[in-house]
Amino acid sequence: MVGSVGNGSMDLREKEKVEPLPREFDPEEIVPPKPPLETEGAGGEEGSGKSREIVLGRNVHTMCFAIKEPEADDEVTGEREAYMASVLARYRRSLIDRTKHHLGYPYNLDFDYGALGQLQHFSINNLGDPFIESNYGVHSRQFEVGVLDWFARLWELEKNEYWGYITNCGTEGNLHGILVGREVFPDGILYASGESHYSIFKAARMYRMECLKVDTLASGEIDCTHFKASLLQNMERPAIVNVNIGTTVKGAVDDLDLVIKTLEENGFKDRFYIHCDGALFGLMMPFVKRAPKVTFKKPIGSVSVSGHKFVGCPMPCGVQITRLQHINVLSSNVEYLASRDATIMGSRNGHAPIFLWYTLNRKGYRGFQKEVQKCLRNAHYLKDRLKEAGISVMLNELSSTVVFERPEDEEFVRQWQLACEGNIAHVVVMPNVTIDKLDSFLNELLRHRSCWYQKGNISPPCIAADIGEENCCCALHKR
Amino acid sequence: MVGSVGNGSMDLREKEKVEPLPREFDPEEIVPPKPPLETEGAGGEEGSGKSREIVLGRNVHTMCFAIKEPEADDEVTGEREAYMASVLARYRRSLIDRTKHHLGYPYNLDFDYGALGQLQHFSINNLGDPFIESNYGVHSRQFEVGVLDWFARLWELEKNEYWGYITNCGTEGNLHGILVGREVFPDGILYASGESHYSIFKAARMYRMECLKVDTLASGEIDCTHFKASLLQNMERPAIVNVNIGTTVKGAVDDLDLVIKTLEENGFKDRFYIHCDGALFGLMMPFVKRAPKVTFKKPIGSVSVSGHKFVGCPMPCGVQITRLQHINVLSSNVEYLASRDATIMGSRNGHAPIFLWYTLNRKGYRGFQKEVQKCLRNAHYLKDRLKEAGISVMLNELSSTVVFERPEDEEFVRQWQLACEGNIAHVVVMPNVTIDKLDSFLNELLRHRSCWYQKGNISPPCIAADIGEENCCCALHKR
Repeated sequence: MVGSVGNGSMDLREKEKVEPLPREFDPEEIVPPKPPLETEGAGGEEGSGKSREIVLGRNVHTMCFAIKEPEADDEVTGEREAYMASVLARYRRSLIDRTKHHLGYPYNLDFDYGALGQLQHFSINNLGDPFIESNYGVHSRQFEVGVLDWFARLWELEKNEYWGYITNCGTEGNLHGILVGREVFPDGILYASGESHYSIFKAARMYRMECLKVDTLASGEIDCTHFKASLLQNMERPAIVNVNIGTTVKGAVDDLDLVIKTLEENGFKDRFYIHCDGALFGLMMPFVKRAPKVTFKKPIGSVSVSGHKFVGCPMPCGVQITRLQHINVLSSNVEYLASRDATIMGSRNGHAPIFLWYTLNRKGYRGFQKEVQKCLRNAHYLKDRLKEAGISVMLNELSSTVVFERPEDEEFVRQWQLACEGNIAHVVVMPNVTIDKLDSFLNELLRHRSCWYQKGNISPPCIAADIGEENCCCALHKR
Repeated sequence: MVGSVGNGSMDLREKEKVEPLPREFDPEEIVPPKPPLETEGAGGEEGSGKSREIVLGRNVHTMCFAIKEPEADDEVTGEREAYMASVLARYRRSLIDRTKHHLGYPYNLDFDYGALGQLQHFSINNLGDPFIESNYGVHSRQFEVGVLDWFARLWELEKNEYWGYITNCGTEGNLHGILVGREVFPDGILYASGESHYSIFKAARMYRMECLKVDTLASGEIDCTHFKASLLQNMERPAIVNVNIGTTVKGAVDDLDLVIKTLEENGFKDRFYIHCDGALFGLMMPFVKRAPKVTFKKPIGSVSVSGHKFVGCPMPCGVQITRLQHINVLSSNVEYLASRDATIMGSRNGHAPIFLWYTLNRKGYRGFQKEVQKCLRNAHYLKDRLKEAGISVMLNELSSTVVFERPEDEEFVRQWQLACEGNIAHVVVMPNVTIDKLDSFLNELLRHRSCWYQKGNISPPCIAADIGEENCCCALHKR
């Protein structure tokens, strides 16, 4: 029941303890007493030392907002309504605070969808394929296809040659892309760098595919020398390759052109399928000069991007674009359906396409270009300020992900919602991360840091292995 | 590019044509002219005869709301804002109409989440496992776990013995349940009745599992005689069984007790895993007397239910509950993560749990019980009225899905958003389907029907094969 397991959410934490609720929450005040017939969750003490053990059950059960059976007279007394309103008001306050102090996850929290509030009353569901209407009339396919057209044009695939849909998140896009690859090459081996998102490895396991992990360079990019060696050992089977357009931790962009060249020059011409995981930077790269261009004019099979990241959206979503010919391969095998069933999910959130449509329409390609430039500028600002302060830091050329030494104090990490892995932390500079916010973060970091390291019994960690010696400012590597 | 494919959305349509937009939409009026550089979608004529061909590309592309690059002076002229507001206002009007005329899909469209409108401004994301906190603070795990506790209690699994999460839809629940089954019995064969939801067969294909389709009775329930015969031919491999708690088309409830008995008496004791697909009735059955009880006190492995169906929710969602011990099996194998990665999706919609929490808290078990009773009463009312009018009709004892002859006119089918398969159509009586709405539907049906069949050159279809001779009122079977 109680296992020594880590954090399943972002693959980014190594040593953290169970995270307490933000202070605004005092569930004891508002959670009604537990009904006596229910048993306690699994045991274990919160915050007991530095152990990595995550305690299942009790942790979240003690802080959750239990659902209480209404009393017969609830409607008369109004107590129920008052209780719920109080929970929601407190929750909202905490959301405001948590939204303000947020730097680690690549979510653009800066959006105003007030105009769409009127649509929340409808149960909007784009069941199944976006291009095939269902009898269920409360859908938003008109918006969804508008959004898909926009992305297909961004990645240079003709309207009559693409297929795609709006997914629930980056993971669904990856699951779909890898599945299409497997259906095109049922015997293919999946190649993915060790810095790929964990959903790629999850896909391999779900789909019972053989998967080879490829080494990375210090930047986080796929190491094509090792990739070539792996290919040469498996000449007889086709290759399904995940290419990262922005890795989760270091924001590294795999060199798509080099990956294609490696495949073609080593006997894999017409025997490979490339899925581009652009969850993070898929929408930024097209606007960065010198970035390897993601385009269907190159022999790639699919691209996915998250909608709640750079665009910004109240709920997770994503866009998946692939070649229509691949979907025909996929659907032709679905005998049991006598129909095209090409999405992973059946019922699909119809609100997400409208949010995306709204933002894309307002900003346009030009608007995104401006925002990308701002993010890259601000990321450089953060990197320069950290470097000036003598803090180990790395920023990949094409990236807005600033990687630096993990702050000593977990409370500080939580306060700023930094994503950490081992000894490194990162800030992803999204459009809502302004210079003001960065300054306030930097000032706090420097103030705290002078306390952490003042006594000299601990010193900043060496992170040369993560970001290269030239970027490390630890006692050993600083010059 | 253009294939002879059917409708991928609900597995329910056999002969329909491409569906035009509801009349309120005249996209020509508001869609800006297409930029000249874009090509037309794939060809094909809408509404060309009775063929089942669904035309990909053009159909939705001509009606979609294209995203237009803003002009440089858009902010000054305000044209952009006006265009968008006009699209949204028209869309909203159509949603109101489509929501009013809706009978075929099991969605409760009757909800008022006005109190939650304030939360739409936040990007709420419950990344990964509900029981393990992430550093991303803008989440709603407190609500999610409250909802999960409620369902675990409904299905009689102790707090410290269950694991679950809020999914994006019924399909995700099924994908998860079947995956857990496969991980528990990697060599298992999947058994599912032919009336199972298509996501079950999709899972088998995704997961590379052998899947045997089991026959059904006329009611739509799994035929345990055939099930037994299939088992006996595969004694050497464990069984993973999908049990339908409400089939999609006929609303049939598989006899869980008989399925378990069949397994145990034929040498499969401790060698089977049962997933209960309760997408539709998972939340209704507990409140129906005489219904086979879905409970973890029986040897079942997982139960899933949809949240947007009986509960009602603006976007699709679902609840998945399984035994914690199975998740430990699942996670222990995830070496690459050094962490628990037990959900299918990574980023997860944090709004859905709050909607569910809100409704469950307001209604409670008692509230749902009342609504279930009302639905069953209204379903019987509809069935009786159809029968009185001499129309072939079937209503399973435990069900609120009324199956009857498919209306002759596709326009009428679309107007009422009926779900059809072959010669049958169905209405699923949800809490928002009142006697008034049924009366208005019945009156319209009878009026139209007298036109369709007045000349006598066509007559109502025989649907004895679908619903049994005793329920069929065709010329041959009526007495």
